[in-house]
Amino acid sequence: MREEFQPVKGTRDFLPEDKIIRQRIVDTLREVFETFGFSPLETPSLERWEILSRKYAGGEEILKETYRLKDQGGRELGLRYDLTVPFCRVIAANPEIPKPFKRYQIGRVWRDGPIKLGRYREFWQCDVDVAGSSSMMADAEFLKMIDVVAEKFGINADIRVSNRKLLNSILDYAGVQEEKRLSVTLSIDKLEKIGRDGVVEELISKGIDEESVKKIIELISINGTNDEILKIFKGIKEAREGVEELDELIKYTKILGLKNVRIVPSLARGLAYYTGTIFEAFIKNSNITSSFAGGGRYDDLIGKFTGVDKIPAVGVSFGLDVLSDALKEKMERNKTVVSVFVIPINTKEKSMEIVSMLRDAGINSDVDTIGRSLSKNLNYVNSLNIPYCLIVGKREIDEDSVKLRDMNTGEEKLINIRDVAKEVKKLID
Amino acid sequence: MREEFQPVKGTRDFLPEDKIIRQRIVDTLREVFETFGFSPLETPSLERWEILSRKYAGGEEILKETYRLKDQGGRELGLRYDLTVPFCRVIAANPEIPKPFKRYQIGRVWRDGPIKLGRYREFWQCDVDVAGSSSMMADAEFLKMIDVVAEKFGINADIRVSNRKLLNSILDYAGVQEEKRLSVTLSIDKLEKIGRDGVVEELISKGIDEESVKKIIELISINGTNDEILKIFKGIKEAREGVEELDELIKYTKILGLKNVRIVPSLARGLAYYTGTIFEAFIKNSNITSSFAGGGRYDDLIGKFTGVDKIPAVGVSFGLDVLSDALKEKMERNKTVVSVFVIPINTKEKSMEIVSMLRDAGINSDVDTIGRSLSKNLNYVNSLNIPYCLIVGKREIDEDSVKLRDMNTGEEKLINIRDVAKEVKKLID
Repeated sequence: MREEFQPVKGTRDFLPEDKIIRQRIVDTLREVFETFGFSPLETPSLERWEILSRKYAGGEEILKETYRLKDQGGRELGLRYDLTVPFCRVIAANPEIPKPFKRYQIGRVWRDGPIKLGRYREFWQCDVDVAGSSSMMADAEFLKMIDVVAEKFGINADIRVSNRKLLNSILDYAGVQEEKRLSVTLSIDKLEKIGRDGVVEELISKGIDEESVKKIIELISINGTNDEILKIFKGIKEAREGVEELDELIKYTKILGLKNVRIVPSLARGLAYYTGTIFEAFIKNSNITSSFAGGGRYDDLIGKFTGVDKIPAVGVSFGLDVLSDALKEKMERNKTVVSVFVIPINTKEKSMEIVSMLRDAGINSDVDTIGRSLSKNLNYVNSLNIPYCLIVGKREIDEDSVKLRDMNTGEEKLINIRDVAKEVKKLID
Repeated sequence: MREEFQPVKGTRDFLPEDKIIRQRIVDTLREVFETFGFSPLETPSLERWEILSRKYAGGEEILKETYRLKDQGGRELGLRYDLTVPFCRVIAANPEIPKPFKRYQIGRVWRDGPIKLGRYREFWQCDVDVAGSSSMMADAEFLKMIDVVAEKFGINADIRVSNRKLLNSILDYAGVQEEKRLSVTLSIDKLEKIGRDGVVEELISKGIDEESVKKIIELISINGTNDEILKIFKGIKEAREGVEELDELIKYTKILGLKNVRIVPSLARGLAYYTGTIFEAFIKNSNITSSFAGGGRYDDLIGKFTGVDKIPAVGVSFGLDVLSDALKEKMERNKTVVSVFVIPINTKEKSMEIVSMLRDAGINSDVDTIGRSLSKNLNYVNSLNIPYCLIVGKREIDEDSVKLRDMNTGEEKLINIRDVAKEVKKLID
């Protein structure tokens, strides 16, 4: 790739072979989101700096990574770093929207941070949220939706859930001061990644005393079926509220037929704004260790951000890059959407008519316009992995037929021009 | 709308009622583009300033309106102002892509210019181009594609075509110096808008002498059928090349069955880079006077921009905002994608099962999670214009049935729970 024409560092060009897969993923996500009653929302890429830096928005750390610019009127602007802040802003700007408000938004966000493997400066978020319901029924629907998405993609999902209230009560019970909660939470979240010893080490280094660490580790390591785990936590009176919510959530997931939801007490998730249910979904038996979806309940954020009414909310974010990596392993990668390529042999006009017939029938098709030889056309068709071609020769046309060639097997057969669309449709469906 | 939560000036929030329509338009465009053999491409929003300001890119005027910023590494960046420059960049960066390369790209672009009615600082372009074919067959395909798009949207299209070579030969013939060509071209383009007198006045004010103006006006005002117009221009020997191309183009449009393509010699289009065919499509019998699609051939741009090989190209850009305005008049506007809303009356669990059945059947559906009364739920359903609801009462459930209510007519009927998905599908299909 010529250096001077590379995309900006941290951003990517998606050539057709990648974009076709990403588009299919997005189409499937949209379809699932809509069956679950979520409607699409679109907001600008640019937000006023005032909004992005507002209290209870993304916070200090994220602002350091936000692309900042001024318009010609001198207004301070920034490229959005997530889709949650715009969601809150839209709710505040349009108080007449009936609640619950169920929306999804799939779009780019930007963060000018360090580039590591799998981290980009421009990336996509696929966010689905409901504002205005505090029922665990709403939380359960997200878990079901994750499962439906996974099934559509042939992914075996491991859906882990916990509850921030439960986690906070564990920390209270262990005597962790409130100001250390978030920091401790971040360490706890690493249990499945760095193991028990790793977490202990991190907690000690963060100044948590040994007795507290012991209590924490003991509780977040609890193993067993969901019912067994719930039973143990029911014995800790500080944990009552969180346990009740989790209990209700698990009950609803059973009604929805979910079998792959498991309570993982060490699940914490980094974001400060979660207030109840938290969840994260991983791919079982895969090299891909990043989660493909995650989310939770944030009952205080909208009210604090907008300064208006408290509006309970819960949502999930799907990772387009992770899903895309997972699917690249399974799906065939095509360099083009074209299913059939028409090759005229001194039959330009007839070939145009034939390709028109194919397109009218909804078949993605193309025709040589530059008058190449048959062999050069076949090379082109091969280089794009187009599965079929139609060779339109003068002699065949006189008999109202054309030659259909299967590019994989090399097989050729004569078909009647009238049946071209029908025959091709049979093959590609 | 609360002032502090408004979107950035010149940008827009698209709430579901607007976004649903825009999404349908984009889906239809994609479908048509793909049947014509164009594959999707995606490029970053941010480009290096060096690329955006490169010779033969957008030019001085557009750079003044380009949002400029620096990343943390001090790199000079800008938000892309069109999708043509990224297209050229991708071709230069990936010389291995087989030609002809047919791609479409639908995405945001940004221009920090004055805001007038219908002009925004963030807007969408839907660009379809082929690089690597100089045949008029390729040009004709775009005209056909415009017609197919129009038909899908129930729009009566007026497709105007001309050729830059023809126009240049008219200007030569009239004695206009080459350095005044673009400026004169811009005035000519206004003929259908400001009329003959308006154009005369503009040309005189631009220092074109009366004799030249007379010749220009005479030629660009030629009226008649395509064949009549071509016949007249065939009499001007300076116009030979442009007329031959136009002649061939019109011949191909006939093969493709197009009846609404007309040669308009005054058609000019503003962009400097066009080299041959130019076209623009309007909506017949509509209040909307802006074109919904326009494009042309630009055989020199890619080679000049990349500094590598000359690659002939032709393309079209569809206007999402114009199409959206046109369709808003025809299509029903929905505030939600939801077709059916399930209302539990003390039947939360059964209702969850029913909504799951509906979703499994691919029906966009939702359920009350917040335990509202029947009348409050009906208000909510009405406020979102959801067409149907299912009322799930205890007594009905005991008889394995639920009440289906048509929100438009108020009619209600009992249906068996087993048949819920089937019955609803019948209604909404």
